[in-house]
Amino acid sequence: MRFTIKREELLKGLTTASKAVSSKSASPVLSNVKLDLTESGLFITGSNNETTIKTKVPYQDESGEEIIRNYELGATLLPSKIVGEAIRKMGGEEVTIEVVDSTVATISDAKSNYNLNCIRPEEYPEFDLEPNGVNFELTYAQFASMVDQTAFAASTKEQRQILTALNLEAADGILTAIAIDSARMAKKTIVVNSDLQFVANIPAKSLVDVKQLAEGSQNVAISISDKKALFSFRNTVVSTRLIAGEYPNTKNIIPKVTNFALEVSASDIINAINRANVLADERENVVDLTMSEDRVEVTSKSSQTGTSQEKVEPFRYEGQSLKISFNSSFVIQAINAVGSEDVSFLFVGEMKPFVIKNPSDDSIIQVVTPVRTF
Amino acid sequence: MRFTIKREELLKGLTTASKAVSSKSASPVLSNVKLDLTESGLFITGSNNETTIKTKVPYQDESGEEIIRNYELGATLLPSKIVGEAIRKMGGEEVTIEVVDSTVATISDAKSNYNLNCIRPEEYPEFDLEPNGVNFELTYAQFASMVDQTAFAASTKEQRQILTALNLEAADGILTAIAIDSARMAKKTIVVNSDLQFVANIPAKSLVDVKQLAEGSQNVAISISDKKALFSFRNTVVSTRLIAGEYPNTKNIIPKVTNFALEVSASDIINAINRANVLADERENVVDLTMSEDRVEVTSKSSQTGTSQEKVEPFRYEGQSLKISFNSSFVIQAINAVGSEDVSFLFVGEMKPFVIKNPSDDSIIQVVTPVRTF
Repeated sequence: MRFTIKREELLKGLTTASKAVSSKSASPVLSNVKLDLTESGLFITGSNNETTIKTKVPYQDESGEEIIRNYELGATLLPSKIVGEAIRKMGGEEVTIEVVDSTVATISDAKSNYNLNCIRPEEYPEFDLEPNGVNFELTYAQFASMVDQTAFAASTKEQRQILTALNLEAADGILTAIAIDSARMAKKTIVVNSDLQFVANIPAKSLVDVKQLAEGSQNVAISISDKKALFSFRNTVVSTRLIAGEYPNTKNIIPKVTNFALEVSASDIINAINRANVLADERENVVDLTMSEDRVEVTSKSSQTGTSQEKVEPFRYEGQSLKISFNSSFVIQAINAVGSEDVSFLFVGEMKPFVIKNPSDDSIIQVVTPVRTF
Repeated sequence: MRFTIKREELLKGLTTASKAVSSKSASPVLSNVKLDLTESGLFITGSNNETTIKTKVPYQDESGEEIIRNYELGATLLPSKIVGEAIRKMGGEEVTIEVVDSTVATISDAKSNYNLNCIRPEEYPEFDLEPNGVNFELTYAQFASMVDQTAFAASTKEQRQILTALNLEAADGILTAIAIDSARMAKKTIVVNSDLQFVANIPAKSLVDVKQLAEGSQNVAISISDKKALFSFRNTVVSTRLIAGEYPNTKNIIPKVTNFALEVSASDIINAINRANVLADERENVVDLTMSEDRVEVTSKSSQTGTSQEKVEPFRYEGQSLKISFNSSFVIQAINAVGSEDVSFLFVGEMKPFVIKNPSDDSIIQVVTPVRTF
């Protein structure tokens, strides 16, 4: 194998594929990226066994300008971190990669020359990257907002692995994405083709990665099969293993009847919570929201340091007086995920989970469980 | 005590004074800042016992616009971290601070109200901030370049505390600043008044802090006494305790006769070192510089990964062939400190300390000790 390639294009491909490479992979061969120069382009693959990314650098860009030249087909494995760092730091516009024999590859330009020990390509595992499941497409905007509005609420703790997933379900023309952890839930719905039907638990972290990698794409093509989810965009395919097991029943988490309703400016209440939080260190960032028809306040207290009161106005409030204590960062994340200028809070009672939503859009719902402070 | 103050001005003062406040001070009272409203302004003091910073917020700015109004003189101690965070997050243009009684102070604006437990000002230690030593002045540019070109080479390890200092000596119209650690030295000279005479070992970290705080000032007034160094600029005074003990003799570190001389572009050789460093992980960032009249190369090797060669050209070299191994980050920091477009290396031999300097300026000299690699 040998080729000369535009350095920026190679770097883009390496950066994409190496996003799946873990520094602490169980299998040493997976600390490499696979470079495979075929008739249709240079394919770069990285994997940690759970997630695999394969991306193509074509011979020519869309305007017909040459990216890869002076080549001889072939494949090799190269250490992901070293190659990425070398290509990033090199100075030339083009670099040449050549497999000298099955154990040594060189990367060079006019000033630099790296001789790297390399591994035979046959030692790299075969990964199934075929879209052989239920196939559908979302616009990038739909995909990105689905991920942004829900993935943050998934658990990051490995104890109950199923909660690190986003639960995706398509039925009756609605795609529903749900993330929960012990104290909150985020739910987003998107209208889709009514034939589409599946349930899958996809690692939330992988979806965040796909969202970043696909930025700038028009659409994301998705294929869901029994074991894996596949995401295709531009010249890249990302495959991620589904998380096995039953997702908890979330049907009853969103309260059906609420007795108290607050509507305020999202930025006003976020600022008030942030300011009250200055004194909430000792209580693990728990602040109190006190509401009545006359006054809405966010308060906090610290036995050592003192107390604080933050007026929130203007506001609209319906219901009797109510005081709710909550984790300030959960509520701020939920408000930010809703993403509207004004935000609605709907309460059942002081110890019941409450809803945070856009007053004029039901497609995104956040639920937060209060904290007991007495 | 009570006053209403422009929030931005108070925040600037708090940020300055709290730079001396340590989160892990031996004395709990020093986790506070002292606020002292006198006839001449609001003085804010922070200290960790080693370094003390006192800064003044005046009643009016230079254009005569009011900064502090509606006041009653007095003093209080407030928790540095909490007050800083509260003032930073508050929304109003002005805030009001009021000591309600000797144990409670309020910080408020139209929307926010903090009630903070406070401590009586008498509990704060008295710090000597009088310029009662040898006094002189540097321009800010002189002071900043002296610190930037030397302080990085001081040791950060506490085992030999004297090496964490910058050794400042004035004699015969020359101010000399020297920093050394086990493997390098940085030396800067500045022409000063010939009457000036002193030796002082000032914590390098404090000098870096002063450099940052004084940014934008015209001059820095310095006062050196037996126990402390004092730095005054604008409305701020920084006092730092000198480090006791004898500074090592550095007279013989700079080689007097050198046998090999290399002159190259600073950015060319930094890039070459950075690229070679990709394969220098295993050798603790040691790379090799190989020089002859025909060729200058930076090379590296890793038994696991491979080897690299970087051509450096153009270059001027005088002397026989020579190979030197060194810590790549020490050499890059030294080249950056020299700050010139072209840089000179002067060598005695492969295991002797070598000089890095600006070919046309002897006021700044860097010395690095090679690493034995065989």
